[in-house]
Amino acid sequence: MRANPDLPLDVVGVGNAIVDVIANVSEEFLTEQDVVKGAMTLIDTERASSLYAAMPPGIETSGGSAANTMAGIASLGGHASYIGKVRDDQLGDVFRHDTQSGGVAFDAPAATTGEPTARSLIQVTPDGERSMNTFLGISAYLSPSDIDDTLVESAAITYCEGYLWDRPEAKDAIRHAMNVASAAGRIVSLTLSDSFCVDRHRDEWLGLVADRVDLVFANEAEVCSMFETDDFDSAALQIAELVEVAALTRSAKGSVVMAGGNRLDIGVTPVERVVDATGAGDLYAAGFMYGLSIGADMAGCAELGSIAAGEVISHVGARPHVELTTLI
Amino acid sequence: MRANPDLPLDVVGVGNAIVDVIANVSEEFLTEQDVVKGAMTLIDTERASSLYAAMPPGIETSGGSAANTMAGIASLGGHASYIGKVRDDQLGDVFRHDTQSGGVAFDAPAATTGEPTARSLIQVTPDGERSMNTFLGISAYLSPSDIDDTLVESAAITYCEGYLWDRPEAKDAIRHAMNVASAAGRIVSLTLSDSFCVDRHRDEWLGLVADRVDLVFANEAEVCSMFETDDFDSAALQIAELVEVAALTRSAKGSVVMAGGNRLDIGVTPVERVVDATGAGDLYAAGFMYGLSIGADMAGCAELGSIAAGEVISHVGARPHVELTTLI
Repeated sequence: MRANPDLPLDVVGVGNAIVDVIANVSEEFLTEQDVVKGAMTLIDTERASSLYAAMPPGIETSGGSAANTMAGIASLGGHASYIGKVRDDQLGDVFRHDTQSGGVAFDAPAATTGEPTARSLIQVTPDGERSMNTFLGISAYLSPSDIDDTLVESAAITYCEGYLWDRPEAKDAIRHAMNVASAAGRIVSLTLSDSFCVDRHRDEWLGLVADRVDLVFANEAEVCSMFETDDFDSAALQIAELVEVAALTRSAKGSVVMAGGNRLDIGVTPVERVVDATGAGDLYAAGFMYGLSIGADMAGCAELGSIAAGEVISHVGARPHVELTTLI
Repeated sequence: MRANPDLPLDVVGVGNAIVDVIANVSEEFLTEQDVVKGAMTLIDTERASSLYAAMPPGIETSGGSAANTMAGIASLGGHASYIGKVRDDQLGDVFRHDTQSGGVAFDAPAATTGEPTARSLIQVTPDGERSMNTFLGISAYLSPSDIDDTLVESAAITYCEGYLWDRPEAKDAIRHAMNVASAAGRIVSLTLSDSFCVDRHRDEWLGLVADRVDLVFANEAEVCSMFETDDFDSAALQIAELVEVAALTRSAKGSVVMAGGNRLDIGVTPVERVVDATGAGDLYAAGFMYGLSIGADMAGCAELGSIAAGEVISHVGARPHVELTTLI
């Protein structure tokens, strides 16, 4: 797989524009509040209100899976742009500021009506695992008219997040972005995002991946859910039949790249302590796609992914705290 | 000095209700953006907008000097309440959540009109020093009618922050709170907050401190500014003539307590690295007043202050990240 190096953009990301609200909690908190550990659960206004009230004091920081990935690519020295929807409210301003000042182009105007900017209530347990409860707000209303075709055509890779696959207009937005990218001969990439998402959308996604996706990102639970198996090796072989490249992360076991009939196993970049796993997959994808943009081979791409993921899990928050260029 | 242990509240704090926006910057950033290092500078909407645009990605977390102090007292196991003004906006919700869930009573309804909730753009340089640029918004409009007399009478100590001394109605609010506390035989406390604040309000504050304040908190620069001297020892002696107790912090040199004609020097609690000095003075005051509430002597109060300050400077953000009860 080779990303066209002559285009103005390396990657354009399409996803839910979200501000994360992060607090450290005990395991008991998850039980008491019926939070599904390690997952991303969609919540409504009422649940957001009651769960937030129960949470300890937290910090707010910009998130959103694809946006985190774009921030990672910019931090690595790549050229990234972002498509997502915020409101003209305080959290929308925070999201725009953090995304732009992190070096990612994000210029679409904020919506002036509708629901507020999305937020995700993230509980981090002492083991570093994150459990996310997302109120999608305006972000879920991304529609095909929000996709800038010229922008998509100007990027070597179009990267879409599975989390966005929720409302009909957002599904159409993803399909439209993928169609435009594909017609222009660009690489189309999708992250499966969450095993519960895969479970909800398995049939649609199997078709989408087979028809339209060149490069898929998934973790072990997600790829296993896709093929309704407990056997990772089998799932890896099955997804490899649908796409040109599958980059599969396995937490502490490293990652596996399936490409051109080969399987490549890559170890993790050691970190002193997993403080907050939020953003691990997002930053792996960032490193991997940055690797493609500089012409690295599959092993090089996966290693860049591991380095970027290792940085983001060593602190609270899903975007890099240091310039990732200093780590590579 | 003895705080009445039979009252429902140990301390009620009165101050500017602020959400902090914190980012790590270089020394050059401060120069380029004309930021006064180590100070709290008031900024208007326009400057807030241009400075925020120039700042790197950051995190949002609740702050406000007196509110940080109340969070510290609650974290130490004391009973604290807070009086300050937020709007019914997203940052106002964040401030209320963090304050209440940190164990501080804060029940006054949000303003439904007027300026937005206050925010402070805080730049943290590699030396751990913080430089604050505060857009006061609705917080500056605290007025005597916002002071709940019954609440003030129910607290052993009423603690006011000098930062709030800006608009006429806020000055009246402080005077009113102090008068109510004093008439009820409670301890009246003031922090001088910032040397530039002292410089702006020296004459008014000399009168206020002499007439109404029992317990004053100040750092070296603030107490020196109060008496327009470079000689800390001389300033310490002068403020001791105006109040029953003066608790004076000197950064790495520890703190000095002037009380009953005596001077007591207390060392700092060692920390591995000063990550972010924001909240150091606020948490020192928290520890000191918590000490008064449990009947500690002056040395014990100062030591509790040092422990609480030591925790807060070891991480980003101005409120404790661990239950301070675990440190004492």
